[in-house]
Amino acid sequence: MSSPSGRIIDEYEPIIGRSEMQEILELAERVHGARIIHVNSTMYGGGVAEMLRSLVPLANSLGLKVKWEVIEGDDSFFKTTKSIHNALQGNMNIEISEEMWSHYLEVNEGNVRKLDLEGDVILIHDPQPLPLILHRRGGVWVWRCHVDMSSPHPDVWARIREYVLKYDALVFSLERYAPGDVLGKPVYTRFPAIDPLSDKNRSLSVDEILRVLERYDVDPDRPLIGQVARFDPWKRPLDALKAYRLAREKIPGLQMAMVGSFAHDDPEGEEWYRKVKEEVGDDGDIHLLTNLKDVEVNAVQRSLSVALQMSIREGFGLSVTEALWKEVPVIARRAGGIPLQVIDGFTGFLIESPEEAAERAVYLIKRPWMARELGARGHDHVKRSFIITKLLKDYLRMHIDLVGLAPEIRIR
Amino acid sequence: MSSPSGRIIDEYEPIIGRSEMQEILELAERVHGARIIHVNSTMYGGGVAEMLRSLVPLANSLGLKVKWEVIEGDDSFFKTTKSIHNALQGNMNIEISEEMWSHYLEVNEGNVRKLDLEGDVILIHDPQPLPLILHRRGGVWVWRCHVDMSSPHPDVWARIREYVLKYDALVFSLERYAPGDVLGKPVYTRFPAIDPLSDKNRSLSVDEILRVLERYDVDPDRPLIGQVARFDPWKRPLDALKAYRLAREKIPGLQMAMVGSFAHDDPEGEEWYRKVKEEVGDDGDIHLLTNLKDVEVNAVQRSLSVALQMSIREGFGLSVTEALWKEVPVIARRAGGIPLQVIDGFTGFLIESPEEAAERAVYLIKRPWMARELGARGHDHVKRSFIITKLLKDYLRMHIDLVGLAPEIRIR
Repeated sequence: MSSPSGRIIDEYEPIIGRSEMQEILELAERVHGARIIHVNSTMYGGGVAEMLRSLVPLANSLGLKVKWEVIEGDDSFFKTTKSIHNALQGNMNIEISEEMWSHYLEVNEGNVRKLDLEGDVILIHDPQPLPLILHRRGGVWVWRCHVDMSSPHPDVWARIREYVLKYDALVFSLERYAPGDVLGKPVYTRFPAIDPLSDKNRSLSVDEILRVLERYDVDPDRPLIGQVARFDPWKRPLDALKAYRLAREKIPGLQMAMVGSFAHDDPEGEEWYRKVKEEVGDDGDIHLLTNLKDVEVNAVQRSLSVALQMSIREGFGLSVTEALWKEVPVIARRAGGIPLQVIDGFTGFLIESPEEAAERAVYLIKRPWMARELGARGHDHVKRSFIITKLLKDYLRMHIDLVGLAPEIRIR
Repeated sequence: MSSPSGRIIDEYEPIIGRSEMQEILELAERVHGARIIHVNSTMYGGGVAEMLRSLVPLANSLGLKVKWEVIEGDDSFFKTTKSIHNALQGNMNIEISEEMWSHYLEVNEGNVRKLDLEGDVILIHDPQPLPLILHRRGGVWVWRCHVDMSSPHPDVWARIREYVLKYDALVFSLERYAPGDVLGKPVYTRFPAIDPLSDKNRSLSVDEILRVLERYDVDPDRPLIGQVARFDPWKRPLDALKAYRLAREKIPGLQMAMVGSFAHDDPEGEEWYRKVKEEVGDDGDIHLLTNLKDVEVNAVQRSLSVALQMSIREGFGLSVTEALWKEVPVIARRAGGIPLQVIDGFTGFLIESPEEAAERAVYLIKRPWMARELGARGHDHVKRSFIITKLLKDYLRMHIDLVGLAPEIRIR
């Protein structure tokens, strides 16, 4: 995998081209040696961890000094942060007790001793490590929020906002995700991205794909649709099942793959997995696939005729990005970053109900040529805008910017 | 279509990338002002005319002075040159009378007065204008042969060789196409190429495709396979029909498109069209589509589940290139340049018989995901090697080379 020069970026040249690579090298030169620290709450599972796994070594091999720190917490801490996450995302029924808030702060305080937070730019991802800012020493602190906060639970947001306002800059996945009352703070938009060379996305041989299908008893000769999503109420797995069952009435033999991974910071996952399992019952054509290896998810996605994403809330919708990269057209609701990716009638279809999703799925399964046209456009679209090297470039530009915020830091 | 700078090459940048464009500009600078003359026998129809239609304006907009001349002839001339073509391609049953040879030379002589042959490099395409060399005045003369001449009819080749040996350099589509006894002549290999921005290949909206299908009564909801090829014994149209009929036994409702254009220099076309029409009979699911506009051929190709190419002889097989560019997997015989393009199991399947073709077609129609994987690889493969800007680059390199052959010519 590694290139003769040892620079990881060179491995991307066949995909992004030489001039894009050159631009990245020039930007990286300007922040050579800058100490960047990313902090999040999990090494595995979820889009943030996946991105960091690609981004951190990539930036290091360009001469930056990037570290990735992970905060630790107990179950009750992660239960609280999951509630905060859902409340910030707009669930108004959530209550967080004073005891929960205290524990949230205590866990963060406890982590300060274990983490290396001495850097030029400290990037804190999502609500879990947010209060670390209370213990800041030096550097520019940036809160990188992957949650749609356009209409947050007001009480929860009021508490969270205290910490947010202590940051030097904020980063959201979409412009409209920023809450209205952080005016004055520099706000950056950085689209999340996929790594085309990771196991989740790299190209696979037809035989590799067939082996995975065989392993999970999926028939390669009958059409397959699927949803790749955590088991979570926002992802609407039961809607995906409903859409599938409606589509199967028109396409006999149609199969369904429900691919879900559990993240270590997601206690709700198991509960929703049980609900889905119950709904599936003994339907042999629905493949409930949990905790697959990345390369297996890759293989399953590559064998889909159509990808569904019935979610009503998404940070950005990276599993949509992954499907489009693989030239699979996507049928999805207008949640989060999905409408940026699924351009209706061009890279897939935007729908509102399981009924509509089923109708569009049947349409595309009957017209593989149309699926191919949409899929090819989806791939190009992702390559232009939602690929890890694009994100790297945007982060490098942000690091250069941040020099202005803290002239004392050692960025050239 | 034209870019702000007026340079046609800029329109290709989104496809080929900036650094490839830069290399082309640098090469073109070295032969700025060079007078290049292409001579062939038809403005329309066939791969040579298509390539010149793209290549000539492209090279002109880069500062070369490129002209495209077409020789004129009567029916008997073109009948003779078609026979010469077939004989050079290996048909041993052909006899060319002394009278035919005389007329061949007379028509060429007659054209000398009408054509502008005053250039630095004169590129003569194929056998029709080959004897123009007898009337050469200045410049470097290059014979660009698009025919597989690896095992030519010995008597016909003996006559043709007289003229060939008068050229300064020869260009073949594949290295092994050059006959053995031109040793000592500089021989170049230049793969033919397709223009991704031409009507034949540019991207089409789904609606444009649907309109064309409707115009020709093709059902967009049932799978379609097809062969795009001149009506010609070498293209084996009856084998394509046989493969289709066998595949339909397994895929009820399968449709077939036989797309053939007639070139003005191809009197055999009509005869073979009649044979095919007779074989089709009143089978409503076989669409015999002749003399389509380029954009219509494009639309039909984009709606194929699988492209067939049953030909036993091909110059290079540009209709295979076109299909692969459109991400359609190709099932083809190992003729001409096809094995360079159809990499077995990777961009399509190489087969030997209609039976085998049918089996592979059924396999890919049942597995649209596999067709997509193969198609995507085919597209990348064409983009790397068989795209018009690659051919332009290779021609520019050849022009630079040719300075060495004729130091007096005005190439800087």
